[in-house]
Amino acid sequence: MNVAFGSDNHSGVHADILQAILECNKGYAIAYGDDDYTHRVHDLFKQQFGNKCVPFLVYNGTAANILGLKAVTDSYHAIYCPETAHLHVHECGGPEHYLGCKLIALPTSDGKLTRDMVKHAMFGVNDPHIAQPRVISVTQPTELGTLYTVKELRELADFAHTNDMIMHMDGARLGNAAAALKTGFKEITADAGIDVLSFGGTKNGMMCGESVIFFNHTYARQFQFIRKQGMQLASKMRYLAVQFEAYFHNELWRKNAEHANTMATLLASELEKIPGITITQTVEANAVFVILPPDLLKKIRTRYYFHVFNEQLSEARLMCSFSMTEEDIMAFIQTLQNFLKKK
Amino acid sequence: MNVAFGSDNHSGVHADILQAILECNKGYAIAYGDDDYTHRVHDLFKQQFGNKCVPFLVYNGTAANILGLKAVTDSYHAIYCPETAHLHVHECGGPEHYLGCKLIALPTSDGKLTRDMVKHAMFGVNDPHIAQPRVISVTQPTELGTLYTVKELRELADFAHTNDMIMHMDGARLGNAAAALKTGFKEITADAGIDVLSFGGTKNGMMCGESVIFFNHTYARQFQFIRKQGMQLASKMRYLAVQFEAYFHNELWRKNAEHANTMATLLASELEKIPGITITQTVEANAVFVILPPDLLKKIRTRYYFHVFNEQLSEARLMCSFSMTEEDIMAFIQTLQNFLKKK
Amino acid sequence: MNVAFGSDNHSGVHADILQAILECNKGYAIAYGDDDYTHRVHDLFKQQFGNKCVPFLVYNGTAANILGLKAVTDSYHAIYCPETAHLHVHECGGPEHYLGCKLIALPTSDGKLTRDMVKHAMFGVNDPHIAQPRVISVTQPTELGTLYTVKELRELADFAHTNDMIMHMDGARLGNAAAALKTGFKEITADAGIDVLSFGGTKNGMMCGESVIFFNHTYARQFQFIRKQGMQLASKMRYLAVQFEAYFHNELWRKNAEHANTMATLLASELEKIPGITITQTVEANAVFVILPPDLLKKIRTRYYFHVFNEQLSEARLMCSFSMTEEDIMAFIQTLQNFLKKK
Amino acid sequence: MNVAFGSDNHSGVHADILQAILECNKGYAIAYGDDDYTHRVHDLFKQQFGNKCVPFLVYNGTAANILGLKAVTDSYHAIYCPETAHLHVHECGGPEHYLGCKLIALPTSDGKLTRDMVKHAMFGVNDPHIAQPRVISVTQPTELGTLYTVKELRELADFAHTNDMIMHMDGARLGNAAAALKTGFKEITADAGIDVLSFGGTKNGMMCGESVIFFNHTYARQFQFIRKQGMQLASKMRYLAVQFEAYFHNELWRKNAEHANTMATLLASELEKIPGITITQTVEANAVFVILPPDLLKKIRTRYYFHVFNEQLSEARLMCSFSMTEEDIMAFIQTLQNFLKKK
Repeated sequence: MNVAFGSDNHSGVHADILQAILECNKGYAIAYGDDDYTHRVHDLFKQQFGNKCVPFLVYNGTAANILGLKAVTDSYHAIYCPETAHLHVHECGGPEHYLGCKLIALPTSDGKLTRDMVKHAMFGVNDPHIAQPRVISVTQPTELGTLYTVKELRELADFAHTNDMIMHMDGARLGNAAAALKTGFKEITADAGIDVLSFGGTKNGMMCGESVIFFNHTYARQFQFIRKQGMQLASKMRYLAVQFEAYFHNELWRKNAEHANTMATLLASELEKIPGITITQTVEANAVFVILPPDLLKKIRTRYYFHVFNEQLSEARLMCSFSMTEEDIMAFIQTLQNFLKKK
Repeated sequence: MNVAFGSDNHSGVHADILQAILECNKGYAIAYGDDDYTHRVHDLFKQQFGNKCVPFLVYNGTAANILGLKAVTDSYHAIYCPETAHLHVHECGGPEHYLGCKLIALPTSDGKLTRDMVKHAMFGVNDPHIAQPRVISVTQPTELGTLYTVKELRELADFAHTNDMIMHMDGARLGNAAAALKTGFKEITADAGIDVLSFGGTKNGMMCGESVIFFNHTYARQFQFIRKQGMQLASKMRYLAVQFEAYFHNELWRKNAEHANTMATLLASELEKIPGITITQTVEANAVFVILPPDLLKKIRTRYYFHVFNEQLSEARLMCSFSMTEEDIMAFIQTLQNFLKKK
Repeated sequence: MNVAFGSDNHSGVHADILQAILECNKGYAIAYGDDDYTHRVHDLFKQQFGNKCVPFLVYNGTAANILGLKAVTDSYHAIYCPETAHLHVHECGGPEHYLGCKLIALPTSDGKLTRDMVKHAMFGVNDPHIAQPRVISVTQPTELGTLYTVKELRELADFAHTNDMIMHMDGARLGNAAAALKTGFKEITADAGIDVLSFGGTKNGMMCGESVIFFNHTYARQFQFIRKQGMQLASKMRYLAVQFEAYFHNELWRKNAEHANTMATLLASELEKIPGITITQTVEANAVFVILPPDLLKKIRTRYYFHVFNEQLSEARLMCSFSMTEEDIMAFIQTLQNFLKKK
Repeated sequence: MNVAFGSDNHSGVHADILQAILECNKGYAIAYGDDDYTHRVHDLFKQQFGNKCVPFLVYNGTAANILGLKAVTDSYHAIYCPETAHLHVHECGGPEHYLGCKLIALPTSDGKLTRDMVKHAMFGVNDPHIAQPRVISVTQPTELGTLYTVKELRELADFAHTNDMIMHMDGARLGNAAAALKTGFKEITADAGIDVLSFGGTKNGMMCGESVIFFNHTYARQFQFIRKQGMQLASKMRYLAVQFEAYFHNELWRKNAEHANTMATLLASELEKIPGITITQTVEANAVFVILPPDLLKKIRTRYYFHVFNEQLSEARLMCSFSMTEEDIMAFIQTLQNFLKKK
């Protein structure tokens, strides 16, 4: 069973990341982040995200989302997100449990919130019976593989700030967004009005390690307690820190992400050539959503492991990663074509 | 600044562990633990802890403690632990926050609970005003570097089970205990009546990765949801799994732990030779608690980073690890003696 | 400003209820429910709801909903409810905060869930990333003033139980439902497959006091702790208990509820006679949902306080209560007509 | 079984309170506190507690404590209280569950914290592993029937404020304290540096109804959401409000409290005359703690219901209330003497 398209976290670790881990494995280092490696990587974050960023390393993306939001919410707050948001669908109710907040999941066609959607959904401000609007949460690129432009983000952020709300971004695959938009990280986060960011590396070549980045010192002030209480303060932190260092070095993140994005584009263009197959979302990053004839879907799943996004529509999600090759893509296409011929 | 004695997690990663990580870095693997590496290591856990054990990998010890307890408690329960318990003192209130439970912290001289202590402290069973006794939590070895004998554990566990309570063990350094007691893991956990175990490897040579082990299938049944909701389901799980595999292989854990324990014994015996210095806890594992004259303490801290356990008593905690050498120990002793001479 | 139609809890307390309070005000009684009045009313609950019911008194409906659900959920569970549910909209996120659960709010036209709606919405059973389906929550009568038939409830309950789920009913106005359906309480709760019920009296003539009723001893077992920890164990419980006693006595509840329902029917039939006014929901209990011309709505709100249910549709909610008179209804109608004439 | 001494909430409701309830039972009133009765009583609170007070009515004392603290804490905070605190012992772990905070319960001989106790116990400020000191919680009068002087409170409050902490008072029986100290409410709360107060009336003649009072607008700002989410927003609020109105009117509270205090003094002085009986706490309010010979304790409990405070010491707690008479006291004494004679 080929699992390559299941998710970009089915890939292994990029050689440069592993090398960095090997190199830092000497001598002793104070635990829990008070070490030279971690101090150094904090500076690198500032280079990437701007001087006002305050970064904290955590283990994984679910934690980055939930704990980042903990710093800016109280239990009677509501968080607006698209109904496809990882935060809403795939964190086993963790946000509700840990934050106490209500998630208000809005339907979208492409995984992207707009100002009007949020505006229309908001109600009950200052009514004690109603969970109070507090956060707009977007994912970049979205769970449907689409992208917000900087202008779209800015519009949402302006709306949020005008309404005393916070702008949160789930950037588990932020590298893929920056690569696709041909920007750095700062332009699509700090400069677009994001207040709290989950910034991930695992899906783009790291072993484990995500981060929470605040673009406002006030929100960051108590986060050291939130992280520890939230079970996400790594003892041997240097091994997380050096992964990010290698990730930033020479823009490894961009190379990996560009490659994954290119593979997705190739995959989509090859799929489109096959009659009866429909690409359902614009391919802007490294995900391809595609409707296959039901029996073709069934057959290809005997050879390839991936997620069926919508069983009723026979719609699949195919993720491309940094380690995938053109041969991998073409082998998948060939397998599909073989199944079609045999039919 | 030499940080070697600060904690056993100031050490790096054992070469065998790193090698295992390197070797598993090939090809794709299904994320979130449904991969061959993880399946295989689950079998190894059964070899080590007995067939009825159900293991789950998590990132760190705080999570192993809190999430393991979540599986066996409800919010109106009370957890009895020694007042030195990591669970009580050093997890930033995480257990209260995540479990809702009340921690009842009992004073001890050596970090060890006894049946009589718990019996004496328990009250209010079936009284709705009172948080209901549910868990006895012990740490093995204790936070004071002492050990429970199997008989002592058994006595506590019998008391727990007779009173419809659960026996929890924080085994962040369980290797050091098994090495010191010259047993395997099963004898001091499953066979001693433990129901839920936090079993750690990071402090004994791993990079990161701890585990929750249930010795009763019923408690384990919903834990996959608890782990995910609890922000502790690793995506690239194989890199945790192979660390444990290497840790178990040829009893690497025992070699590392025995070495750390031996270094602690050496350190204590050398310290005892110095006039004015008092060892305050029996050295049974890899921790040495020692009272130094206040100005000596002050001076040695200019050269060595470690925790002052009790400021008023001028009592320090010195941790020994797998990577420490006799030379390290003797250099520390020599530094102390030099300070004493200059006085 | 006439506030009569704002809600049925804008009314005062029925004279019989007050009388019962006065009469129990003699001598001492053990606090927290261990008194004769409370014991006696528990027996009365069994007469009303069947022998297997286990009742607990609490202060209000939000608590009855949340604490009742706490007894049957864990934090990784999902609760399915209509998107109009009080539980979802009007409890300030209390369920998410107190239970940790995810609420999955389904769109309906009439406030009523159907088996197919729930079936269609359910997904991810046994997938650790997904909050696990656990409860179907219905309100009887619904927040839109409509009723479930016993058959509809039974169908939902069968579906719930087949899928290892719990059937919860918010019965804040259960008296209005039983009066309208011409049944007792048992037929539309225990006999219809309800597992956990919030049963209210405040909206139908009591001063304060609601209850949680379990129809399965297992779910009730730990509820005494849940109620106390949940801040809902009344000290002078007798004053809650005797209210329920008077409420049950000679079916005071039915008289009050029938009257309120009749007033709603009258109100609706009179409103329907007015051109340009549309009743939007079948009037089956004591609520009338009605679309008024926007400027008429604006004018009538200068004289009457009530809730605008849908600002964009110019749709109002008018609640009738036990204390409302035909004259009250006709005065409201007259006021509307006067406004129309002046136009 | 005579239950008079069990607790002051075993008494009924004072006639003036009931009368106020009867009188407000006319017509309609907007629910949830937006009614004239509630607005009026808020003004009365300001008269009693000073103009900067912001009061909120809730149902009971456990809620007043927990929700008041919710307004001033985050989950990583620690609350210092005496180990006899109701908050710690008798709320079934509600504070831990609802706040997430750690309670640090300090041993005292008389139920009173001192600055030095708190100072000595505090540690780990700014250390992310440690729950951060945030609240000092005192009970006035204490759970042992003793009183803080204004000076003692001031000293604790100054210490709290100097250390960026909040001063919380559980005033479930505040009337008894003010009556004993011959002050008004303001002198022993606002003027003594209290930030958040639970102010109760139920134990001194009300039916139900407590309040949370903030002496700083900042802390009060979000409390309307906390109260609703916390299941403590009463719908027919007027019936709570008028109880407080009657309670304040002509200082009913003081008359009731003075009487209860006097009864306690009488009870203690009569008990002291009996050989073999020891009063264990200074009787400063309406509680008497007394050691009785074990078999006398056993016998008197066949006639009188009350709490044994310390089983091992044969120490009982006898509470006096507003409704108790001298005859009640003397009958109790007589019963004791009869038992002694028969021996």
